[in-house]
Amino acid sequence: MAWTRKHLLDLEELTAGEIVEILDTAASFKEVSGRSVKKVPALRGKVVVNLFFESSTRTSNSFALAAQRLSADTLSFTSSGSSVSKGETLIDTAKNIEAMGVDAFVIRHSAPGAPHLLARHTACSVVNAGDGCHEHPTQGLLDIFTIREHFMRDQAHKKADPALALKGLTVAILGDIRHSRVARSNAHGLRKLGARVILAGPPTLVPAAIGAALGVETSHDIDYVLQESDVLNCLRIQFERKAGRFFPGVREYAAIYGLNEERMKRAKPEAIIMHPGPINRGIEITPELADGPRSVILHQVENGMAVRMAVLYLCVGANN
Amino acid sequence: MAWTRKHLLDLEELTAGEIVEILDTAASFKEVSGRSVKKVPALRGKVVVNLFFESSTRTSNSFALAAQRLSADTLSFTSSGSSVSKGETLIDTAKNIEAMGVDAFVIRHSAPGAPHLLARHTACSVVNAGDGCHEHPTQGLLDIFTIREHFMRDQAHKKADPALALKGLTVAILGDIRHSRVARSNAHGLRKLGARVILAGPPTLVPAAIGAALGVETSHDIDYVLQESDVLNCLRIQFERKAGRFFPGVREYAAIYGLNEERMKRAKPEAIIMHPGPINRGIEITPELADGPRSVILHQVENGMAVRMAVLYLCVGANN
Amino acid sequence: MAWTRKHLLDLEELTAGEIVEILDTAASFKEVSGRSVKKVPALRGKVVVNLFFESSTRTSNSFALAAQRLSADTLSFTSSGSSVSKGETLIDTAKNIEAMGVDAFVIRHSAPGAPHLLARHTACSVVNAGDGCHEHPTQGLLDIFTIREHFMRDQAHKKADPALALKGLTVAILGDIRHSRVARSNAHGLRKLGARVILAGPPTLVPAAIGAALGVETSHDIDYVLQESDVLNCLRIQFERKAGRFFPGVREYAAIYGLNEERMKRAKPEAIIMHPGPINRGIEITPELADGPRSVILHQVENGMAVRMAVLYLCVGANN
Repeated sequence: MAWTRKHLLDLEELTAGEIVEILDTAASFKEVSGRSVKKVPALRGKVVVNLFFESSTRTSNSFALAAQRLSADTLSFTSSGSSVSKGETLIDTAKNIEAMGVDAFVIRHSAPGAPHLLARHTACSVVNAGDGCHEHPTQGLLDIFTIREHFMRDQAHKKADPALALKGLTVAILGDIRHSRVARSNAHGLRKLGARVILAGPPTLVPAAIGAALGVETSHDIDYVLQESDVLNCLRIQFERKAGRFFPGVREYAAIYGLNEERMKRAKPEAIIMHPGPINRGIEITPELADGPRSVILHQVENGMAVRMAVLYLCVGANN
Repeated sequence: MAWTRKHLLDLEELTAGEIVEILDTAASFKEVSGRSVKKVPALRGKVVVNLFFESSTRTSNSFALAAQRLSADTLSFTSSGSSVSKGETLIDTAKNIEAMGVDAFVIRHSAPGAPHLLARHTACSVVNAGDGCHEHPTQGLLDIFTIREHFMRDQAHKKADPALALKGLTVAILGDIRHSRVARSNAHGLRKLGARVILAGPPTLVPAAIGAALGVETSHDIDYVLQESDVLNCLRIQFERKAGRFFPGVREYAAIYGLNEERMKRAKPEAIIMHPGPINRGIEITPELADGPRSVILHQVENGMAVRMAVLYLCVGANN
Repeated sequence: MAWTRKHLLDLEELTAGEIVEILDTAASFKEVSGRSVKKVPALRGKVVVNLFFESSTRTSNSFALAAQRLSADTLSFTSSGSSVSKGETLIDTAKNIEAMGVDAFVIRHSAPGAPHLLARHTACSVVNAGDGCHEHPTQGLLDIFTIREHFMRDQAHKKADPALALKGLTVAILGDIRHSRVARSNAHGLRKLGARVILAGPPTLVPAAIGAALGVETSHDIDYVLQESDVLNCLRIQFERKAGRFFPGVREYAAIYGLNEERMKRAKPEAIIMHPGPINRGIEITPELADGPRSVILHQVENGMAVRMAVLYLCVGANN
C-alpha cells in the first residue's frame, strides 16, 4: 500500500500512485452500496465530524452516509447556532470538538487553505470537502473514478503505471472555471493520471492564466472542444454566488456554451457528459442530455459514496 | 401475507385487507417500544431518508425513531440549505440521493401527489408523510389502530373479514375538514373497515361536497354528532396556515365546536377523544378533556411508532 | 452504590457522596474515549432526546456523542420548526416525545426550573443542560472533575469522606457571576466537597448577596483572588446576552479583571486556569494563557464527555 497520509487536503499534493490507490480502494467499496445490508465494520467506534461553514446538505449527507456505511458515528457542526457564531476561531472550535474524542473532520470553508490550517493544529484526520475557490478533492476523485470506470474497463495493462492510467483521454471542463474548486481538483488529478485537460467557457470565466497555472489547455471555442473531447464535464453556474456578473446573460450563456442535442452532434460518438450537480436544467445542459444515454451524472453521485468511503477508510482507518 | 406494495402513498388505494395487515404488523411491533432494549434488526444496513419540504420536527423524528428502532440508518434532507434552494427539482434531488444507495424516502410536501410523482421516478420505497391537503396515511393508520385497539379487544371474530373490522363504530372527525389531509386519510381507511364516519364542523370548513366525494356523512350540528359517535377525533385548527379566515373567531369556534366537559355530558358514556396534536388547549378541546380519562391522545402517539415501524418494515424490508 | 436518582436537575440537591459517585463513574468512562473503538454497550436500545430551547451546538453535540458512546440512539428536538413554535407547551411536547418510547430528556431552557417541571411530568430521566441563570450541573461536574483529577492524584485517603474530597483547595470563579448558571453549579458542588470558593469580578457582576446565598466568599479585588487561589475559573463574558451593560467597556474589563501573563505572576505557582468556553481571546484571558501550560481548558472538554457519559449511565442505565 502506497497510502501513508492522515489527511486529504487537495489533489495537487498527491502522487499518481496515491490517486490510483484511492480509486482502487473505492472500487472495492462500491460493491458495498449495492448490497442489501449496506454496512461494513471498518470504522466502528470512530467518530467522523462534519464541520461545514458553508451550507451543503448534499455533500455533508454524502460524507455522513459514507461514514455510517463504514459503521462510524457521525456528528454535524454548522456555523449557525454554534460557538462559531459566538466569535470562536476555527482552531478553537476544532480543538474543542477534538477534545471530545473524535477521529476525523470533514471540513467545508469559504477560505482557501482552511483545511490545511486545521490539519496543522489537530491530531485528527482532516478531509477537505471544499475550500473557497481552491480545491474539492473528493469531487475531483469521483469524477476521475467515473471516467476511469467508463473508459478503462478493458485496459488493465495501464494499471502498471498510474501516471498513464487515463492516457489517451481528453477531458473538457466547461463553465465557470475561474471560481471553480471542482475544476482545479479535476485538472490536477487528471493531469497526474496522463489525461489531456481542456478548460473551456467564456473568456471572462476561463482566463488563460488559470490554464497556465494548472498546466493545462484553455479554450473559448465550444466547437473545437466538442470535437476533441471524450468527456464533457459541465460545471454548475452558481447563480447563488453571483456568477452571473461574469457574462451578459443566462440565455446568452446557454446559447453559446450550454450543451444541447444539436450541439452534441459535433461531439465524438462515444463522448460522455458529466455534471457535479445540482443542474440548472436548460442552462448548462438540456434535460434531454442530462437524462440521456451519454449522461453519467447519477453514476458520479453513486461513485461519490465509494470514493468518500475510500478516503475516510484510508485516512482514518487503515493506518491509524 | 397480502402485502406486496413497495410504497405507502395513500389509504384511498389500499384494500381493507392491506390496512388490516399493517395494523396487525404494527400490533406485533408495539411490544418492541416497551422493551428495555428497544431495537430489532429488521432493517439493519438499510437507509431511510426523510425528505421534508414542510417543517415538522415531530413527524420527521417519529419516522427517524421508527427507522432506528428497526436498526436502519437515517438521513434527513430539508428544503432549506439544500440543493432544493439552489433550484433543483424534486425528482433530481431524489434521484441524486437515491444514487448514494438509499432504500426509502419518507416525504412531506405541500403539493398533493408529490409522493406519487416521486414513486414513479425512483426504485426506492416511498412513504407519504403528508402531501398538501391530500392524505397523511400513517396518521390515518395510527388513528385507526388506536380505535381498533380500544374498542375491538374482545371481538377477534371480526378479523375474519377486514371490511367488517370496525363495523358498528361511529367516528366523528371535527374541525377544519376542508384543509385536512388527516381527515381524508381517516375517512378512506375507516370506511374501508366498515366504520360509519361523520365529518363535522362549521359549514365553511365542512362543505357537503367533501362528504359526498369521500362517501361519508357531514354535519354542522355538534349535539347530533356527540350523540351518535363512539370516537371524537378533534383536528387541530392550523392558525399558522391561516385557518382562522374560515370562521369568525377563535372564541366563537371554541364555543360552538370546541369540546369541553359540559358538552361531553351529551356524548356516549364510552366515547373516546382523539387529537393528532399539537393541541391548541382551550380551543379544539379543554385541558381537562385532553388529559382526562376519555382521552387516548398519547396512545395515538405511542401507536404512531408501531404503525410507522410496520409501514417501513412492510415497504422496505419484507418483500425487498 | 449511593446513586438512586432518575434525574440530574442541579448540584444543590446532591450530597457530597452522590457527586463523588458521578466523578468516580466518569473516571472509569474516561478511558473509553481514548480507545480506538470508542464505544460501550451500556445504553444499547435506549433513546436519549436532546430538547434544546436555547441553541447550543457544542453542548447538545457533547451530550449526543456521550449517548452514542454508550450505544444509545439519539434524537434532537429544537424549538424552531417544531411543534413548540406552533404554540405547544413544554409538557405537551415532552409527553408526546415520551409516548414515542424514549428514555431520557437532556433539556436546555431559558426558564430556571424548567427541568424540574419536566421531571415532575415524565417517567423519563431528565438531565438539566442549563436552565436560565439557575444551574448547569454537568458543567459544574466537569469543572470539579478536572480540579480533582489535577490536584488530588496522590491523595487517595481523601476518598474516605466525600465532603473532604477537595479540602484545602481554593477555587476562584471570575466574571459575570450574576448571570452565570455555571458559577452557581460550581459553587454548590465545590462547597459540598470541602473546597473554599471565591466569586470574583466587578461589583455590578458579583453582588455580595449572591455569595451570601450560595454560602461562599465574594471579592472585587483581583490581586487578592490571585494570591489565594489554586484554581482560576474564568467565565465567558456573554456579549450575545448583553452582558456588556454591566461594566463600562470590554477594554476596561480586560484591564481590570482579564487574566494575562503579567497578572499571573502574582498567582500561586501551581495555580491552574479554567474556562467553560467558547473563549473571547484577549478579554477574559489572553491567548498565551489559554494555550499555555497552566491551562486545563481542553481537559475540561475531554472530561465533559466522561462526566456526561457517567450522568446518562447512572440516571438512565444503572438503576432503570
